[in-house]
Amino acid sequence: MARKKSLGDGPVLRGQILECASRLFYERGFGATSIRDIAEGVGISSSTMYHHFTNKRDVLHAIVSRFMTDFVDATLPTLCDQSLSPTERIRRTVRLHIEISDDRRPELLVGNPIRYALDPAQKEQGVKLQTIYHDAVRDTIEEGARTGEFTVENVSITTMAVLDMLNGIREWFSPDGPLTRAEVIDRYVDLIMTILAARPATGRGPAL
Amino acid sequence: MARKKSLGDGPVLRGQILECASRLFYERGFGATSIRDIAEGVGISSSTMYHHFTNKRDVLHAIVSRFMTDFVDATLPTLCDQSLSPTERIRRTVRLHIEISDDRRPELLVGNPIRYALDPAQKEQGVKLQTIYHDAVRDTIEEGARTGEFTVENVSITTMAVLDMLNGIREWFSPDGPLTRAEVIDRYVDLIMTILAARPATGRGPAL
Repeated sequence: MARKKSLGDGPVLRGQILECASRLFYERGFGATSIRDIAEGVGISSSTMYHHFTNKRDVLHAIVSRFMTDFVDATLPTLCDQSLSPTERIRRTVRLHIEISDDRRPELLVGNPIRYALDPAQKEQGVKLQTIYHDAVRDTIEEGARTGEFTVENVSITTMAVLDMLNGIREWFSPDGPLTRAEVIDRYVDLIMTILAARPATGRGPAL
Repeated sequence: MARKKSLGDGPVLRGQILECASRLFYERGFGATSIRDIAEGVGISSSTMYHHFTNKRDVLHAIVSRFMTDFVDATLPTLCDQSLSPTERIRRTVRLHIEISDDRRPELLVGNPIRYALDPAQKEQGVKLQTIYHDAVRDTIEEGARTGEFTVENVSITTMAVLDMLNGIREWFSPDGPLTRAEVIDRYVDLIMTILAARPATGRGPAL
């Protein structure tokens, strides 16, 4: 067996703890997983574990923060890229959203206990990151409506509908199911372009 | 104060227990609510409470079952009404889905702990009811695609997208917010008709 890891392993170890904890929270549920289970899963002592995290809630918070920070870092450059049309920005974001959600499914699904498990300051930080992403998507849709690429009756409602569609996928999509990820991405790009009544750049009529 | 309620109150009391429990699960979370809290909220003794439910998990299961049964009872007659066109069936179902989800929000949101709190048989029953609804929506979309009212590339994916959009609303809609429920319903009927590329019965072109 490998040697027991110790404090000296630093950030790498922290990453391993988050990796293992999200898998356990995902498989067994947050309530049924103990700090000790996580320590055992990583191959460290509970005291090393407590050096990194005060309690289980802090582990959950670290998972959520890391995920949301990475998600925002991965999507914002595209959403804010003024060299691309709003249509192209949304197309690329839909793809990124589905890919990241699928690649990191366990981290995302531990989100379920957040409503009750995190303290208010921790929750606020998560909501802040979600809001940054939400607002960037909304602004892009709004810009597309202004430029005439999109036809949108109510930008707020359409933004929520688009995000809920995308966030729902992780609950039902399985790589072992009848649909490939590439098919799901292609169909969702089409569905979302349809919702936005996106017109091709040539302006030759609806893209339906 | 009102008299303590007792066993004799039967089904009415059972309904009150579920009402109170869903409110407490919603406000405090499933983990932080005890059988005793529920009994106190209803104004009954813990022993009367235990006459109706073996444990807290059974209360949760009863809430979910009752909600899903009512939901299916309320929507299936519309989804299966062959005197209506698929377009009209989907329009009415969208409205019902949003109204019921909003009217009974606490019961719906206790759904969060279901993934871990219920036992396999309880979970299966909930999934079975969800599947009945899902399949009826999918069949209606499929029928509309067959009759030419809808243009749908992939019926399964479109069904999931439509249901995820509708299920997402309860997480963000607030009657105290800037949008009225009627506005949300109208916009979602439009968005979903757009996704289905629904054409008016006259066949005079896209309904956009």
